[in-house]
Amino acid sequence: MYKNRRTIHIEWGDCDPAGIVYFPRYAEWFDVCTTSMLASAGFPKSELMRTRGIVFPVVDIQTRFLLASRFGEEVAVETSVVRLGRSSFVVQHQLLKGDRVAVECTETRVWTRIDPFASPTLKSESIPDDVRKILTAES
Amino acid sequence: MYKNRRTIHIEWGDCDPAGIVYFPRYAEWFDVCTTSMLASAGFPKSELMRTRGIVFPVVDIQTRFLLASRFGEEVAVETSVVRLGRSSFVVQHQLLKGDRVAVECTETRVWTRIDPFASPTLKSESIPDDVRKILTAES
Amino acid sequence: MYKNRRTIHIEWGDCDPAGIVYFPRYAEWFDVCTTSMLASAGFPKSELMRTRGIVFPVVDIQTRFLLASRFGEEVAVETSVVRLGRSSFVVQHQLLKGDRVAVECTETRVWTRIDPFASPTLKSESIPDDVRKILTAES
Amino acid sequence: MYKNRRTIHIEWGDCDPAGIVYFPRYAEWFDVCTTSMLASAGFPKSELMRTRGIVFPVVDIQTRFLLASRFGEEVAVETSVVRLGRSSFVVQHQLLKGDRVAVECTETRVWTRIDPFASPTLKSESIPDDVRKILTAES
Repeated sequence: MYKNRRTIHIEWGDCDPAGIVYFPRYAEWFDVCTTSMLASAGFPKSELMRTRGIVFPVVDIQTRFLLASRFGEEVAVETSVVRLGRSSFVVQHQLLKGDRVAVECTETRVWTRIDPFASPTLKSESIPDDVRKILTAES
Repeated sequence: MYKNRRTIHIEWGDCDPAGIVYFPRYAEWFDVCTTSMLASAGFPKSELMRTRGIVFPVVDIQTRFLLASRFGEEVAVETSVVRLGRSSFVVQHQLLKGDRVAVECTETRVWTRIDPFASPTLKSESIPDDVRKILTAES
Repeated sequence: MYKNRRTIHIEWGDCDPAGIVYFPRYAEWFDVCTTSMLASAGFPKSELMRTRGIVFPVVDIQTRFLLASRFGEEVAVETSVVRLGRSSFVVQHQLLKGDRVAVECTETRVWTRIDPFASPTLKSESIPDDVRKILTAES
Repeated sequence: MYKNRRTIHIEWGDCDPAGIVYFPRYAEWFDVCTTSMLASAGFPKSELMRTRGIVFPVVDIQTRFLLASRFGEEVAVETSVVRLGRSSFVVQHQLLKGDRVAVECTETRVWTRIDPFASPTLKSESIPDDVRKILTAES
């Protein structure tokens, strides 16, 4: 399945008084990593929104924190599609310090039509074939 | 002119590895304080947007940091309108620790028509009389 | 087991271009809710740190997003201890819109000695009896 | 005086329901830009802290917002030292969209000894000669 890798430099404002990354920052980074993986696959979010009226909100997220990271460190995130359903897909992120997994996150997202007048309930759609083809290919 | 006061409890995630509030948080709090002052004056932002198509972006902000604050502290912000122009208004925030001013901020905002298809240049409008009347009154 | 409830007013800066809460904000709020629950139980985080040298980092977090929330809404979070191990405890947060669960989160945290010179591996400790007694009581 | 340039990709979570960058994010980015400029000059913040016990908090910040930026845009920030006092220095940031200035910010920072047991009042120090020499040179 499709994979992508990003480097993150840990900034002062990402860290808390214990000197380590404040854990909600990981969720922000992983969100950027999913967007970035889709962009590298040829589907930038801004274009999916403008030309297809599609967003892909998170419906489930599970994160394990194994090692803390500190200001000034550089870490990598490996992001891969691990499951592709009809209208949902599952992305796994591994935040690595060297070759050790520091944080591991599994996000389930739903392919959803934007509807500004919508009820807060999501309206999912089938993931189209052109997206499906690339996300299931090895990268 | 119109005034409002809010209490802020400083949370763990607001603070940096030096153990003090990470300074961009103040800008977020002051933004909430302006919104909250307008709401207390009878003009909730969500309603101004929905019924009048109006937002009030910041065009200029000046902040002086006099005393640091730490996790667990409770501070107050006194927010007041200090100038009301034709289409702009100036808000002053004083973040207080007891009776000492810890942070002082002056925000200039413009009364602006929402235009989702707009160029990034703002389209200002005259602040209407009902808003003007309340914001110039003592509170 | 111990319970607490907090009201959250959803601010402009909490929301994304889809007009709904940007999901990492929930993790920040739930972190505040855990801290706030422990404070209401008589164990403010700042005091646990200063007098006992204890923090309680998250090691696992699982979140399901059922309903989106928008700027201007007021929601409640019900936080409860659902499991109390030797050195870890599990907290559940339910973010409620009226009586509907909008977001549900389960956090596992570890009772940990602060060690500024530590390796990034956590040093857990037994949760002491005075804390255990209150957290296992109905509130 | 010393200069540095950084590219910023505007992410989904940086933007508000109006679809533009939520303005406190600029303060975070400019903080990263100052840290990054000092690092490129040979003075990484983490090292200044560890080896010299020095931080450089903001005491004054003035920002003008001229053009909004949207999700998916790429902008550049040009950061330069514009004044170097005995114990304070002034940094200017220009956030550029192409060759147009979108946001302009002037930060005054103080060279300060870290003191974890300190009162919230800052203890400034003279900026040392090795730092002074590089920051006053053209880059």
